[in-house]
Amino acid sequence: MRTVVDAIIGEVYDRCRGNRDGALADYIPELAQVRPDGFALCVATTDGHVYETGDADTEFTIQSISKPLTYGLALADRGPAAVAAKIDVEPSGEPFNEISLDPVTERPRNPMINAGAITAASLIAGDDPAERFERVRRCYSTYAGRELGLDRRVYESEARTGHRNRAIGHMLRSFGIVTDDPDEAVDLYFRQCSINVTCRDLALIAATLANNGTHPRTGRRALAPEHVEQVLSVMTSCGMYDAAGEWITQVGLPAKSGVGGGVLAVLPGQIGIAVYSPRLDAHGNSARGVQACRELSRTLDLHFLHVGRAARSAIRSTHTVDRAPSRQRRSAAERDTLARVGRRARIYELHGDLLFSGAESAVRAVAEHADDLDAVVVDLRRVDEVGDVARRMLADLRTDLAARGCRCTFVDPDGHLGHTASSVDRSERIFADLDRALEWAEDELLDRHCDGGRIPAAIALADHPLLAGLSAAQFDHIAAELDLVDAPGGHTVVRRGDDPVGIVLILSGRVSTIVTGPDGTEHRITTLAPGMTFGEMPTLIGGTFLNDVRADTATRLAVLSPERFAKLTDAAPDLKLALVTRLAQGAYAQLDSAIRSLGGAGSPAPTLGFLS
Amino acid sequence: MRTVVDAIIGEVYDRCRGNRDGALADYIPELAQVRPDGFALCVATTDGHVYETGDADTEFTIQSISKPLTYGLALADRGPAAVAAKIDVEPSGEPFNEISLDPVTERPRNPMINAGAITAASLIAGDDPAERFERVRRCYSTYAGRELGLDRRVYESEARTGHRNRAIGHMLRSFGIVTDDPDEAVDLYFRQCSINVTCRDLALIAATLANNGTHPRTGRRALAPEHVEQVLSVMTSCGMYDAAGEWITQVGLPAKSGVGGGVLAVLPGQIGIAVYSPRLDAHGNSARGVQACRELSRTLDLHFLHVGRAARSAIRSTHTVDRAPSRQRRSAAERDTLARVGRRARIYELHGDLLFSGAESAVRAVAEHADDLDAVVVDLRRVDEVGDVARRMLADLRTDLAARGCRCTFVDPDGHLGHTASSVDRSERIFADLDRALEWAEDELLDRHCDGGRIPAAIALADHPLLAGLSAAQFDHIAAELDLVDAPGGHTVVRRGDDPVGIVLILSGRVSTIVTGPDGTEHRITTLAPGMTFGEMPTLIGGTFLNDVRADTATRLAVLSPERFAKLTDAAPDLKLALVTRLAQGAYAQLDSAIRSLGGAGSPAPTLGFLS
Repeated sequence: MRTVVDAIIGEVYDRCRGNRDGALADYIPELAQVRPDGFALCVATTDGHVYETGDADTEFTIQSISKPLTYGLALADRGPAAVAAKIDVEPSGEPFNEISLDPVTERPRNPMINAGAITAASLIAGDDPAERFERVRRCYSTYAGRELGLDRRVYESEARTGHRNRAIGHMLRSFGIVTDDPDEAVDLYFRQCSINVTCRDLALIAATLANNGTHPRTGRRALAPEHVEQVLSVMTSCGMYDAAGEWITQVGLPAKSGVGGGVLAVLPGQIGIAVYSPRLDAHGNSARGVQACRELSRTLDLHFLHVGRAARSAIRSTHTVDRAPSRQRRSAAERDTLARVGRRARIYELHGDLLFSGAESAVRAVAEHADDLDAVVVDLRRVDEVGDVARRMLADLRTDLAARGCRCTFVDPDGHLGHTASSVDRSERIFADLDRALEWAEDELLDRHCDGGRIPAAIALADHPLLAGLSAAQFDHIAAELDLVDAPGGHTVVRRGDDPVGIVLILSGRVSTIVTGPDGTEHRITTLAPGMTFGEMPTLIGGTFLNDVRADTATRLAVLSPERFAKLTDAAPDLKLALVTRLAQGAYAQLDSAIRSLGGAGSPAPTLGFLS
Repeated sequence: MRTVVDAIIGEVYDRCRGNRDGALADYIPELAQVRPDGFALCVATTDGHVYETGDADTEFTIQSISKPLTYGLALADRGPAAVAAKIDVEPSGEPFNEISLDPVTERPRNPMINAGAITAASLIAGDDPAERFERVRRCYSTYAGRELGLDRRVYESEARTGHRNRAIGHMLRSFGIVTDDPDEAVDLYFRQCSINVTCRDLALIAATLANNGTHPRTGRRALAPEHVEQVLSVMTSCGMYDAAGEWITQVGLPAKSGVGGGVLAVLPGQIGIAVYSPRLDAHGNSARGVQACRELSRTLDLHFLHVGRAARSAIRSTHTVDRAPSRQRRSAAERDTLARVGRRARIYELHGDLLFSGAESAVRAVAEHADDLDAVVVDLRRVDEVGDVARRMLADLRTDLAARGCRCTFVDPDGHLGHTASSVDRSERIFADLDRALEWAEDELLDRHCDGGRIPAAIALADHPLLAGLSAAQFDHIAAELDLVDAPGGHTVVRRGDDPVGIVLILSGRVSTIVTGPDGTEHRITTLAPGMTFGEMPTLIGGTFLNDVRADTATRLAVLSPERFAKLTDAAPDLKLALVTRLAQGAYAQLDSAIRSLGGAGSPAPTLGFLS
């Protein structure tokens, strides 16, 4: 199906189609025999989707686009230092086939000119020429995601006529840059240039570079991440022969072209682009390929120096525990304390990539307010990547805050902080979910600021708020209807799907309602403490329990069964009205609290109930 | 206060401090007289914070760092085409003061070598030399955010001894590149090089470039965004004299150095870096400045080709209206229909920057599922930037979906889509808030799939669900207690802060509860229809209304006043118990619905009430 993206790429293709500038390479007859009007434009994403226009399946020889790939293989085989001792990385300002070295360093100026590329070929590991070529061919095939083969006729023609490259080989040998038989290095270079690719292959090769060296479809690694940046850097400064400066200003993407008519360009982290059109301009670049890349970069806004806007803050939102409480139910005194000092515990939700610039804005904002805070929760759940420097900055932030009397914790279920790193104080907890971190921050405030009225470990039945305000006779009546139940810690009191068990009053211990997600992880909905109740919703409106209820600790419960609750209507209507009114009040209070809590900071509290 | 970022920058500073490589520039005596060990390192963010280490206030002459600034001013004064006709953008591979032009184009190779810089100076607009220099000085001052001045001794010394640059000027005149008096252009160049800056100034100049041409603190524009990319491109390919290739591989930032000892580097969109250290290496770059930039780039991971990870999807989350309903209350038949077909209306929440790559992943994902959808809501509230191509892709997506029988709308309160653009079909609504868009999507489903049982325009009192199940006597009793009230559309029935008005039954029309945010914008909490009630929460638990209640249309209400509700306890306890039980049931049902709705997709529904 043709998508809106196909349409946009198709328009670029159509705008360039009429370009007949340039001429076929003719230094060997095979290159002069291709159809001059062949034209393809492919864009591959880093998740492996390929948009194709034109002759995407036409095979042609890779030629100089092999240079960055072999250079990358040499980096992997020999290491960057050994390669740097043989090949510089400066743009030459000279044609690609110049028989010259840098007059000062006596090295090839860069790996994208022939002298540097032949040197890179001489650095490929392998016991004999056949094995070295097979390693090169397999490497390119990994980039492309399919087995690539040699165009033997092109290779033989290159080998027969390539005196200039042989001259370069011998020059390299005479300066000690190539240390073995220079003809073998030149022959490997001829072979690598003669490998057949399609425009689709080139787009996937580019996408593999964009994807940090891993093929987007096969998941196989073609180049280690630490070498990808080096290869892309050299493509940026030297990839387009002696038109590199104009390419950077007009296209702004690391790129490489070949005299076979191919061009590839890379937007790091995002997409790979390839064009095939065999007519070449005076620099030896595909004339229509350069135009198509220029148009595509402008149309799709791909220039790597494009500044869309200033970096946004890494802080997605921030709020305090008085506006976004934990799901731990609190006593009246605790609630009052949290209402009073809740602004002293602040949550910072970060997002995006936490590289230096984002982390800098975040730690600066947190540190600015630290004197007014007792506890800080840094929530990393929405963060995509945490760079090394950001990891260190967050660890330092925690130390810095602690020295100023403010405790700091992190919500980091994905392990961005690398919990085993020595820089993270292991005595400090890191939480897997926000709710528990909020509870920690609330407890931190309560320990510092709440002098009394903390939720007791146990209450007497007469002190349970559901029964507050009953007459002595009403209390005696209801007390006789209640069954006392003891549950050990860890016991599941009610299971999802259970029928109503009645109205359950908590006298001691803690119980949590738990939901188990599709992936098996448990989330608590709420934790209840002595003086609270559960079970009234299924009892009042029917239906089954939707979640598990589990005793967190040893728990004592008082249960009014559904049958006894029903019988109260006739036996003690005044008592029942008092209970139901308390329950309705509780429901509305909870509704208010739930909407405040779940709606997040600044969310309005409702005033209204409804019926329908 | 020393922050964690200061500490990291301080470490880089300390690691470089011992570097005594290189020598002071000595072609004029003034440059050889500075303190050779002076050293400063500054980092400025695009929101204007500057981290400073060392001699951040020491003044020195800007020298060649003036070149990109004057080049930018020439682009603004003459336009890119006129400038391109005079100055190429190719790296030269030659020393900066070479007296040569490109042999083919007969133009200076780039604006970062002296020949190109003198040409750029000759293009500055102004009636006379004094005005031209004043325009240059004011331009640089805007970049720095303070008034900069000339170092007259350095200028006079340069002017007295600058024969090589005068030779370049006359060469340029002889080739027709400079068309007026070449000595005037060379003199302006000497003056611009002699402007004094501090390392802090350079960091803010770099941050201004990073910030797309606008000074982060003053908000004044130094360079138009369309020229920033060009200037940064030329700095990338040619900024570090003939060490540009090594700079790209090792530092990977657009940069410029000067023989006064300054270096600045730009991470587009994020930060500006500056170093001052006057000992120069063989290329003419600050030796310790290059080291500090290399260390800083590696430590802070600033290389512009760094691929942290593959591009993330622009889709932050997606869900369907059965999991995240609107706040429009629905009838039972409507709710059943939405439960059955709610998956046919899908919300896509996008985030981050919507440039090509992000928009591509989003439109591809939406289009893939379109055959199973009747309605799509694309929520742009969390999007930071929408590029031109993404805007077009979203408009095309809507057209594409419509052709496939799926309607599409956008939530776009910030106007990212440019509502006046002709590409957006004006007959299609764009919503300012998600809730109204959800209601639109639900209505779309109900129109297609709900055959009957839609909420009626009006109901009789006997059909109101609050009164369902009452005996005839109970109904007659309550009917006599109710006052009928008619409210016109737009009338505010209850205001925030009002005392309880009783329990209000809706018989016809629609009412919404409204909260007004701090910025004056109104948000609806819920919209209620015939058969629903409001006002029970303040009546049952006391307190005042927290929000306005407004009649959206002409509305008929039946009101049970708080006094009459209270009196029922004695007068008709069975009736009151029935009503309170219905209200409690309603509250729990609403609690369930509120938590489903506000908790977002996948949020668990609670089973539990509580009291405390």
